Amino acid sequence: MKKKFLLKKIISILKKKGLSKKHSKISANYLIEAELFDARSHGITRLKMYCDRIKKGLINTKPKIKVKNINSSVSYIDADNCIGFVAAEIGIDKAIQNAKKTGIGLVAVKKSGHYGLSRFYAERAVKKKLIVFCFTNAPPALAPFGSRKPLFGTNPICFGSPTGKVPFIFDSSTTKINRGILRRADKLGLKIPSGLALNKKGLPTTIAREALLGTQLPIAGFKGSGLAWMIDILSGVLTGSSHSGKTKDPFDDFSGPQNIGHLFITINPNIFSGNNFFKEIRKNIKRVKKLPKAKGFSSILYPGERKNKIYKKNMNKDISIPRKILKEMEVLDANK
Amino acid sequence: MKKKFLLKKIISILKKKGLSKKHSKISANYLIEAELFDARSHGITRLKMYCDRIKKGLINTKPKIKVKNINSSVSYIDADNCIGFVAAEIGIDKAIQNAKKTGIGLVAVKKSGHYGLSRFYAERAVKKKLIVFCFTNAPPALAPFGSRKPLFGTNPICFGSPTGKVPFIFDSSTTKINRGILRRADKLGLKIPSGLALNKKGLPTTIAREALLGTQLPIAGFKGSGLAWMIDILSGVLTGSSHSGKTKDPFDDFSGPQNIGHLFITINPNIFSGNNFFKEIRKNIKRVKKLPKAKGFSSILYPGERKNKIYKKNMNKDISIPRKILKEMEVLDANK
Repeated sequence: MKKKFLLKKIISILKKKGLSKKHSKISANYLIEAELFDARSHGITRLKMYCDRIKKGLINTKPKIKVKNINSSVSYIDADNCIGFVAAEIGIDKAIQNAKKTGIGLVAVKKSGHYGLSRFYAERAVKKKLIVFCFTNAPPALAPFGSRKPLFGTNPICFGSPTGKVPFIFDSSTTKINRGILRRADKLGLKIPSGLALNKKGLPTTIAREALLGTQLPIAGFKGSGLAWMIDILSGVLTGSSHSGKTKDPFDDFSGPQNIGHLFITINPNIFSGNNFFKEIRKNIKRVKKLPKAKGFSSILYPGERKNKIYKKNMNKDISIPRKILKEMEVLDANK
Repeated sequence: MKKKFLLKKIISILKKKGLSKKHSKISANYLIEAELFDARSHGITRLKMYCDRIKKGLINTKPKIKVKNINSSVSYIDADNCIGFVAAEIGIDKAIQNAKKTGIGLVAVKKSGHYGLSRFYAERAVKKKLIVFCFTNAPPALAPFGSRKPLFGTNPICFGSPTGKVPFIFDSSTTKINRGILRRADKLGLKIPSGLALNKKGLPTTIAREALLGTQLPIAGFKGSGLAWMIDILSGVLTGSSHSGKTKDPFDDFSGPQNIGHLFITINPNIFSGNNFFKEIRKNIKRVKKLPKAKGFSSILYPGERKNKIYKKNMNKDISIPRKILKEMEVLDANK
């Protein structure tokens, strides 16, 4: 489907459900961005979920978003349960502003919802020549080390840095497989590789549905579990949002708003050694790329490069949407 | 050996080599702390290395440490190649001060050396009721994903948070095995478990020496490699220090000072939701601990708890030192 047409379609559907024109535009844009990054688990497949939550009043279509500037570096945002994309965009823009003023920005967002990919907001800061951390929590997916019940989300770590060229964007969940990929596999009846998740009984599974009802395995055992816990503290406890398993699953739990929290930290890389930073990071990347390659590798890519290539390639193509999801869109478009 | 006696001995040795009384005391204290945490790879086994570097003039015994306050949140420290423990302690104390003033502290340290465990400095901030990140770089140990030559250090991620009780301290290298453990295993002729490192030819090895000359494997493949790269940018490039493989190995490379960088980020957890933070983090920990346990687990510990127990147990015992290291100390003590 043509991108332009698809964008219009999504905006029209979101508006029909009651979202404002502005919020519909912002949200539709990020859903398309996810498709362009081949992060299809965070793309159009989620449109129905957002619509369901809007219809049920769990995403606030007329939010009173409050931005409190605690000082010139630190701000606190109450997103009033607006759609996550909008809350996060306001949050990262505030963090960018703050870092431009003082060298460091710290912004907490509470009462938000699922915001798509952390990468979106990291790129926004990196394009303004800032270093950035984005943290967000997510509904239970991962069992803390020593437990057999999921409680932490897939809690991604996202870090970005300008390089002078393609942004360095490290964006990785603390689970071996992303939950969105599980969701999409379940919807489309695809199997998942083994060794990534356990079923409810604690046994390995390759069936997406069983994994969703069971536990996703953390990267690196107790280290991944510790990182997920760290992110639960930063994005949940610190921001005054849901945490320790209380973040509602946007697909399954309609008992209230998600109350997700985000934390953005931005740093002006010029603050310590001036423009030397840009000289040195170019050297850094050049040195790594020149290393002798491992078997099966013809080049070494830094985090963000592969995704950037995918994005550019997809920019020149139409977006292909599985029939099942197309049908979902038709139904969404037909009903108020 | 009695702790008090050991402390005196180490101070006396360091002073004999030319370190000031103050710097000797600070350094000896952290070497003992490492032993108490059972992080023996960062304990007395390193004393000879520090002495060698002092003797060769690579650790500056009369440094002119400059602290530049860029603003009330951000400071930049030129440690003038002093011993790493001292540089890091000055750095974290500045970061603590800044966060107490504005809610956020950002401190970069350049021209430093190996500072022991990141945990030391994280605990210092947590004891002042702050959330903290400590980043430091290290000499080449890990091959970037796609390469077969080590370039990044074991680059630890360290995060701390107050809990009202035992500090939450996540301190983990981005490699599957710590380099210090390899060093100590090599010194004492111990084998290492398989699957953690490759030899120079890229083949798995359990011989510490081969692993030291080869490559340590990252946690979680490309994710661990990406995290190590992130830390190289934060502690190396951003601080204006060595990076991308240019950090000198303190044991093997006497061609100049290490020029290691550290980055400390401190956050006052009260800044967003006041004392609610402490109420919520207690809830957070309680909820996780109450989860049903996995097979073989009788309790769930948060990062830092196990080490805290070890520390307390060791506090009531003498420190046992392998004969080989005792001999090393005797030689160090005998010679100027």
